[in-house]
Amino acid sequence: MKKVAVIMGSASDLPVVEKAITVLKKYEVPFEVHVYSAHRTPIQAGKFAAEARKAGFGVIIAAAGKAAHLAGVMAAYSTLPVIGLPVKAAELDGMDALLATVQMPSGVPVATVAINGAANAALLAIQMLAIEDKNLQKKLDQAKQEAAEEALAKDVQIAEKYSV
Amino acid sequence: MKKVAVIMGSASDLPVVEKAITVLKKYEVPFEVHVYSAHRTPIQAGKFAAEARKAGFGVIIAAAGKAAHLAGVMAAYSTLPVIGLPVKAAELDGMDALLATVQMPSGVPVATVAINGAANAALLAIQMLAIEDKNLQKKLDQAKQEAAEEALAKDVQIAEKYSV
Amino acid sequence: MKKVAVIMGSASDLPVVEKAITVLKKYEVPFEVHVYSAHRTPIQAGKFAAEARKAGFGVIIAAAGKAAHLAGVMAAYSTLPVIGLPVKAAELDGMDALLATVQMPSGVPVATVAINGAANAALLAIQMLAIEDKNLQKKLDQAKQEAAEEALAKDVQIAEKYSV
Amino acid sequence: MKKVAVIMGSASDLPVVEKAITVLKKYEVPFEVHVYSAHRTPIQAGKFAAEARKAGFGVIIAAAGKAAHLAGVMAAYSTLPVIGLPVKAAELDGMDALLATVQMPSGVPVATVAINGAANAALLAIQMLAIEDKNLQKKLDQAKQEAAEEALAKDVQIAEKYSV
Amino acid sequence: MKKVAVIMGSASDLPVVEKAITVLKKYEVPFEVHVYSAHRTPIQAGKFAAEARKAGFGVIIAAAGKAAHLAGVMAAYSTLPVIGLPVKAAELDGMDALLATVQMPSGVPVATVAINGAANAALLAIQMLAIEDKNLQKKLDQAKQEAAEEALAKDVQIAEKYSV
Amino acid sequence: MKKVAVIMGSASDLPVVEKAITVLKKYEVPFEVHVYSAHRTPIQAGKFAAEARKAGFGVIIAAAGKAAHLAGVMAAYSTLPVIGLPVKAAELDGMDALLATVQMPSGVPVATVAINGAANAALLAIQMLAIEDKNLQKKLDQAKQEAAEEALAKDVQIAEKYSV
Amino acid sequence: MKKVAVIMGSASDLPVVEKAITVLKKYEVPFEVHVYSAHRTPIQAGKFAAEARKAGFGVIIAAAGKAAHLAGVMAAYSTLPVIGLPVKAAELDGMDALLATVQMPSGVPVATVAINGAANAALLAIQMLAIEDKNLQKKLDQAKQEAAEEALAKDVQIAEKYSV
Amino acid sequence: MKKVAVIMGSASDLPVVEKAITVLKKYEVPFEVHVYSAHRTPIQAGKFAAEARKAGFGVIIAAAGKAAHLAGVMAAYSTLPVIGLPVKAAELDGMDALLATVQMPSGVPVATVAINGAANAALLAIQMLAIEDKNLQKKLDQAKQEAAEEALAKDVQIAEKYSV
Repeated sequence: MKKVAVIMGSASDLPVVEKAITVLKKYEVPFEVHVYSAHRTPIQAGKFAAEARKAGFGVIIAAAGKAAHLAGVMAAYSTLPVIGLPVKAAELDGMDALLATVQMPSGVPVATVAINGAANAALLAIQMLAIEDKNLQKKLDQAKQEAAEEALAKDVQIAEKYSV
Repeated sequence: MKKVAVIMGSASDLPVVEKAITVLKKYEVPFEVHVYSAHRTPIQAGKFAAEARKAGFGVIIAAAGKAAHLAGVMAAYSTLPVIGLPVKAAELDGMDALLATVQMPSGVPVATVAINGAANAALLAIQMLAIEDKNLQKKLDQAKQEAAEEALAKDVQIAEKYSV
Repeated sequence: MKKVAVIMGSASDLPVVEKAITVLKKYEVPFEVHVYSAHRTPIQAGKFAAEARKAGFGVIIAAAGKAAHLAGVMAAYSTLPVIGLPVKAAELDGMDALLATVQMPSGVPVATVAINGAANAALLAIQMLAIEDKNLQKKLDQAKQEAAEEALAKDVQIAEKYSV
Repeated sequence: MKKVAVIMGSASDLPVVEKAITVLKKYEVPFEVHVYSAHRTPIQAGKFAAEARKAGFGVIIAAAGKAAHLAGVMAAYSTLPVIGLPVKAAELDGMDALLATVQMPSGVPVATVAINGAANAALLAIQMLAIEDKNLQKKLDQAKQEAAEEALAKDVQIAEKYSV
Repeated sequence: MKKVAVIMGSASDLPVVEKAITVLKKYEVPFEVHVYSAHRTPIQAGKFAAEARKAGFGVIIAAAGKAAHLAGVMAAYSTLPVIGLPVKAAELDGMDALLATVQMPSGVPVATVAINGAANAALLAIQMLAIEDKNLQKKLDQAKQEAAEEALAKDVQIAEKYSV
Repeated sequence: MKKVAVIMGSASDLPVVEKAITVLKKYEVPFEVHVYSAHRTPIQAGKFAAEARKAGFGVIIAAAGKAAHLAGVMAAYSTLPVIGLPVKAAELDGMDALLATVQMPSGVPVATVAINGAANAALLAIQMLAIEDKNLQKKLDQAKQEAAEEALAKDVQIAEKYSV
Repeated sequence: MKKVAVIMGSASDLPVVEKAITVLKKYEVPFEVHVYSAHRTPIQAGKFAAEARKAGFGVIIAAAGKAAHLAGVMAAYSTLPVIGLPVKAAELDGMDALLATVQMPSGVPVATVAINGAANAALLAIQMLAIEDKNLQKKLDQAKQEAAEEALAKDVQIAEKYSV
Repeated sequence: MKKVAVIMGSASDLPVVEKAITVLKKYEVPFEVHVYSAHRTPIQAGKFAAEARKAGFGVIIAAAGKAAHLAGVMAAYSTLPVIGLPVKAAELDGMDALLATVQMPSGVPVATVAINGAANAALLAIQMLAIEDKNLQKKLDQAKQEAAEEALAKDVQIAEKYSV
């Protein structure tokens, strides 16, 4: 199976990114985690992206905050699908990271998820890998089913307790 | 090859969506175009999404404006990767569509591209299909190469004309 | 009397929604509380909305955060008036939920109240039921009167203490 | 049948408000149109609202732009449901009117629709009146059905023309 | 001397408003403090404004949060200068109150100060009263002078400690 | 009578400012118009403000766009009441000018009116001068009365034509 | 004298950038103009920045719109001062470009000017070069003087025509 | 070597500004720290800026919050490059300070850094001084190198611990 690359712009993004790692582990998808900064280690970031497909990666997740250029750098150097995960910083509530990640120019898309939406970044990566992988499809459908059942159980519980 | 579904919430989104169609044609990726509204034809929208994988689709692109729920509906009924394309309407410059598309809750991701970024929505779909398709990979790399060459040709032209 | 449906997208919205429950109880309006997610249990959400009028409901309140599609889904499946209650999440201060709830396309209105404005969502539902219910009208007028008196009592108290 | 009051803050709001009038006529709902300004004719605005229920009104629609206080004034003087219609002005794209209309304090709800969403304001009023009116319910369901069919017809047309 | 009216929309605005009271006391300007809500006690609010000039007031300060209509109501019923003080609430950081206060339509101005800028609201009121009052002018000039001296003293202190 | 100073940051603000001039003329209030830029002629701007009271001015109106510092500069050099008029520029719809004008620090208030709200800036200046001027009070009350009558005439006209 | 590099992300930015070229010519500062895209020609962009100091450049101006990463890329590869010029695109009024340019992480500054503020980008570059260049200082002071005189001439003209 | 002026609008900005001081000390660049307010001590602020070049300064850093006019005042009185540091205040998350600092009119640039980006303000000042200073260039390159190495060390550490 193709691997997922989980790149964060700074080690301080780890608490957000960890939810992505948890999801990838749950789905038994192979992955690598890296710290590459679009601004402090641009050469390594570019090199990683440029060689990612040959190195066996199928998708790249790039997490960054503020003027979040990391996903854009990944997408500049690779034609792998790149998932942008905007990270909320101390100011502006993540709006800067969201716009800097999603508003990519024509020709270089970034698949952007919600601010701090790390679990969804991982799920989206798995959905991409699952396009040609029946086993992953089954796991995704099953998880969807379980989430529905869990929600319905909550409904029964709350409906009973609160309806009059 | 898996097909791409291009769904728009309203026929009035067609002028924006057409750039996605152009890109998909260029890459010779099979696709279907549909008008399904999250609000006016929710049953058909849901049914399409629920059956999309079995019908041979690998990716869904969902274009919608204002309180753009279409991509979310698609993602609610399918575990295919769903690409959300926020469409700019007469008010708020597309910000409402962007937030309504990208800020999805945990468990149900939408891969959001730029406001009116239809070409990128198609390219992202192709990148997903290319994960396991060497022919598409080659085409993507070639297009990236051509875009670079085109930009560099512009550079030569402008550098000559304007530098002093 | 017609019932009010209070639907929340996630059990985690309960602390916000509880203020609506308190108001409905105070007015002795019958209601049911449910957890239906536009994204995790879309079929049940749609089914509930589609059958709500026959099941004796007169109004639906739908509470959701982030890319808040729940009210839109309810309005897509029912011609009952749907009240949208945008819930504030950890990012963007509820602005995403507000825009995703209020900016509905022509033909499918959602009656949106303030971010986290759960008491007002319930009051609005009661005002709708009161259109043809003199008893509820009387209660609403009385509560309005009491709120005015309470405010005027505060005025006397503060005017005395702070004016010079 | 109860009447709908359509109040606009300024005669210049008429081009936006006319879509509401068209919808009300289509549904054969009786209505009155007025120009009452929260700021230029506050006494008449308040008087109208205070007497609206006795005068046979069931719902009030209040359209205003900029620091849009009209819906709030109506809601201050009446316990009828008040629908706020934020009107886009030359600056800020209607965001000021939206926030000034929707962010009402606890106890005084305004049912807010989309910026310039006049047709939806009228539809919402009709939905409220329809709670106890089977004839209006039938008309609403029929219109919903027709909108769906129209959208599906568009789908067939566009799917045929654009799918490959 | 003309009095200053300090009106707040809710007793919960008192902690913000108190800074205005402190400033008015310091300048020995007579004032009255009231709680009048544009939405809960609109009649009293309007009545107060309509009679304010005759009652000896020269300026009205109106403090309110969220869909802050209070200053607009004051300005609707009086031709006294009305100072709008937007109060920050739990959501949207005061932006809703700011826009609802400042974006008044032509003919009915509100003199808006910064979000939670209560001291400035009082100072502005005093500046207005000072137009024809040499004693207040002197006090204002003196306070300006003292603020400058205080800032310059800070400069000396910090310049010494931190410059190298 | 004290004069009103109408200062604009750039001659290009004149089309917006002219509405203020029209109002001042209508009320027969003496005024001077100047172009002083906080950034291009800061010394003259400061000098004007510092001497404005002695020169017979009672109020200063300062109109500026973008990073609108002009009103702040006026308020820094004078204890006259300063009215800030944010002017909309080609980008950001006047939001930059609004925030740069209204969010003044404690001790230095600016009485801010709506974006491009030049007529209101003039009216507010007149309201300030009217605090001690019965003649101006009468004119203001009369204009308020006329605006109400005009609005009510519009109401009659539109109510007749559109109500059913 | 050190040269100024004027880099634009796309040839379509030229109409905005030309104002910078005009200013640089006026000051007789040597410069080169290039089209390097952070996303389409990242290698050339990085290479240019990495070698810019050795190639005789003293400052880099980087103009880009939307998710504007160009200035950040320049700053990642060079320790020359980098001036970021956010370019307004068809959506969001340049706010995305502004935030993507200015909100740089610690260690990698970008000197950001106003949206579409090309003339100021050039002036800022000249101010940097002027730190050690008396001739440029003189030119800057002279231009400042001329701008002041021009503004004062406008003042005389407008003051005469409009004051009463 | 030319000195750096670090000006803050209020002593309360010191906790933010201190990071700039730390960086300047690390690079052994001479600097002076001052508290000059655009609004409370405008004359001293202007005088300092007007004489700064003669006093041996090469760059001015101006830190201010809310309606942040300080950098603009500095730039109005000097042709030295002025770095604007927007400081986050209790409301609006620094967006007011950012817009008030960056959106300067043509002819008077301010080099704006991120909200609370004090370290970058200092680094940018050093980059400007380094244009003609080989020793500073070396230090900047070395720091860039060290930051890269530190990031790469983090990468090794995290890649080892989290990749599977």
